[in-house]
Amino acid sequence: MSDFTATDHLMMARALRLAERGAYTTRPNPMVGCVVAHGDEVVGEGFHQRAGEPHAEVIALQAAGKRAKGATVYVTLEPCAHTGRTGPCAEALVKAKVARVVAAMRDPFPQVDGAGFDKLKDAGIEVASGLMEAQARELNRGFLSRIVRGRPWVRVKLATSLDGRSALANGDSKWISGEDSRADVQRWRARAGAIVTGAGTVLADDPSLTVRLGDDTPFEPPLRVVLDPGLATVSRGKVREGEAPTLYVHAPNTKLSRGIDAQLAVADVAHGEFDLLAVLKLLADREINEIHVEAGATLAASFLEAGLVDELLLYVAPVILGSKARPLFDGLNIDSMADRLELDVVESRHFGRDIRVLLRSRAAVA
Amino acid sequence: MSDFTATDHLMMARALRLAERGAYTTRPNPMVGCVVAHGDEVVGEGFHQRAGEPHAEVIALQAAGKRAKGATVYVTLEPCAHTGRTGPCAEALVKAKVARVVAAMRDPFPQVDGAGFDKLKDAGIEVASGLMEAQARELNRGFLSRIVRGRPWVRVKLATSLDGRSALANGDSKWISGEDSRADVQRWRARAGAIVTGAGTVLADDPSLTVRLGDDTPFEPPLRVVLDPGLATVSRGKVREGEAPTLYVHAPNTKLSRGIDAQLAVADVAHGEFDLLAVLKLLADREINEIHVEAGATLAASFLEAGLVDELLLYVAPVILGSKARPLFDGLNIDSMADRLELDVVESRHFGRDIRVLLRSRAAVA
Repeated sequence: MSDFTATDHLMMARALRLAERGAYTTRPNPMVGCVVAHGDEVVGEGFHQRAGEPHAEVIALQAAGKRAKGATVYVTLEPCAHTGRTGPCAEALVKAKVARVVAAMRDPFPQVDGAGFDKLKDAGIEVASGLMEAQARELNRGFLSRIVRGRPWVRVKLATSLDGRSALANGDSKWISGEDSRADVQRWRARAGAIVTGAGTVLADDPSLTVRLGDDTPFEPPLRVVLDPGLATVSRGKVREGEAPTLYVHAPNTKLSRGIDAQLAVADVAHGEFDLLAVLKLLADREINEIHVEAGATLAASFLEAGLVDELLLYVAPVILGSKARPLFDGLNIDSMADRLELDVVESRHFGRDIRVLLRSRAAVA
Repeated sequence: MSDFTATDHLMMARALRLAERGAYTTRPNPMVGCVVAHGDEVVGEGFHQRAGEPHAEVIALQAAGKRAKGATVYVTLEPCAHTGRTGPCAEALVKAKVARVVAAMRDPFPQVDGAGFDKLKDAGIEVASGLMEAQARELNRGFLSRIVRGRPWVRVKLATSLDGRSALANGDSKWISGEDSRADVQRWRARAGAIVTGAGTVLADDPSLTVRLGDDTPFEPPLRVVLDPGLATVSRGKVREGEAPTLYVHAPNTKLSRGIDAQLAVADVAHGEFDLLAVLKLLADREINEIHVEAGATLAASFLEAGLVDELLLYVAPVILGSKARPLFDGLNIDSMADRLELDVVESRHFGRDIRVLLRSRAAVA
């Protein structure tokens, strides 16, 4: 760990903001931002936009041109050392004769994992890592979860009344949260690799689960995933319309009707409920970094009960629905205070009349 | 309505802050702050501390001495015109030969209600009212409620889990909210004229309902009120201990055991439930401006159902208690979205790990 200057912090903060511009498009790659500077002067910068397209370092070096020589390069993730779809960035940095590389964090991806730093050091470049690492980990919590834990980062989104109700007894839930909240949800969907729901929600609400940002910000349509043990919903619904792909996860031994043209995958089921960890692993195999769960009270409770919720995104509307209304987490039975589920508030913000609260499970450390 | 200068605003803001220093002690009087100034220069200031003691204007004029002559006086409420326990402030201002009086609002108290302004104008003093009136009304929402609506301002305080549960199925609710939240509650208790609870809470939790500020800030102990139709709890509990007075409200025709040395009052009961408006009127008759309800899910629901909740003070702990736990509002039945109860978020703040949300009923306008 090195000592970093105020300029180092400013430049890395700039690189992190750049990286974030890839939030809706870099999947399954991590977001990466890069700034090439001489002291306070930025001579080149860039971010990784899409898998298969140039990495952040390459774009920033190109922008810097000859001025890259002797510069300090700030990058939010260790430069790659392997030849993937693009050439290794470490080599490009060596060729450009930069003087110093400051990274926010080491890349745990097996083909990098220190090898990028080693290549730079071997070429006599000064290397420092760990500057604003917490922010960099936060940014790529999905990618890190998949690489390190072998499963996607799980965010469960719910809208609730003040008294913890997601719908009236008759099922009516349109609309608990306000327009601003619903627009905000689109941005969270856009950054997810997959939007996950249950067959019950498809039957009850017929959601399209597409991303509607309301402007021309580019995004990669997330995979839509329906957890449907018996494939009861496979032939219907808005969830099959539009350009985003849809995957149905079903139980083993489910009889497949002829002519189903949907993507299918199998996961184990016990007592009528999916093995959710198996579902997550299956999605990780498809290079999904982050999933966004928009489901009913039962599936949300199952994810919680399985200890698989990393992040809870709660839109709290200032309304009261009463004690006959449906609970936020259905079938979640807790018998003693010691067994209560504890989370940490990461942030709370007002969205129109609602309050958006982002919470993290205490076990979820990216 | 006059045009007010930036200096006027600064001075009134100062007067409002002074007024607030009486929050725990002025009851049943309103909080009032006063600043005497020549332009930007403050020559005297004061606030009303206790009923029976000098009003804010008198203290500020005394501090200003001869410099009150020709000054502008900023006062958060119309100066009084009647001789109550202290002499009329309007007369004192006339005697001091001030040039201009700026008030935040007219005092709706029947013996003032414009008469203070008239007295000043008759003496040739320039009078302006309405500067920062919203803040002034906010400050004295309890006093204004009692004078204008004939009932106290009602604040219901509850601690809840994220999923809207106030206790586990077994009744355990210790502690849903954290230490910081519980300390904050003491300040809200201190500013109330009465802390109201139900017999069920006395039996289940045996609360003392006293104010424990943790420092030597002076306060008037609020009246403790137990709503106990059959006087089942009158002889027991911490709610009878300490120096704060306790009032039991019971149903008509309740048999009184001999030797009950408690304060008693009667309110109508229908179908086993108190007429809560009658209870509020009874408390207004005792000059209670603001009540702070700390009760169980049933009484809280009754206040809501009766449309008598002006303010909801919610401490949301980042925990999940599950769907078997007790609802926040018990017995509150809402069958259609059109009937849902809507509130407005006034403010949300983090208290330790919890979020405190202050909400107002849309009907509650001070």
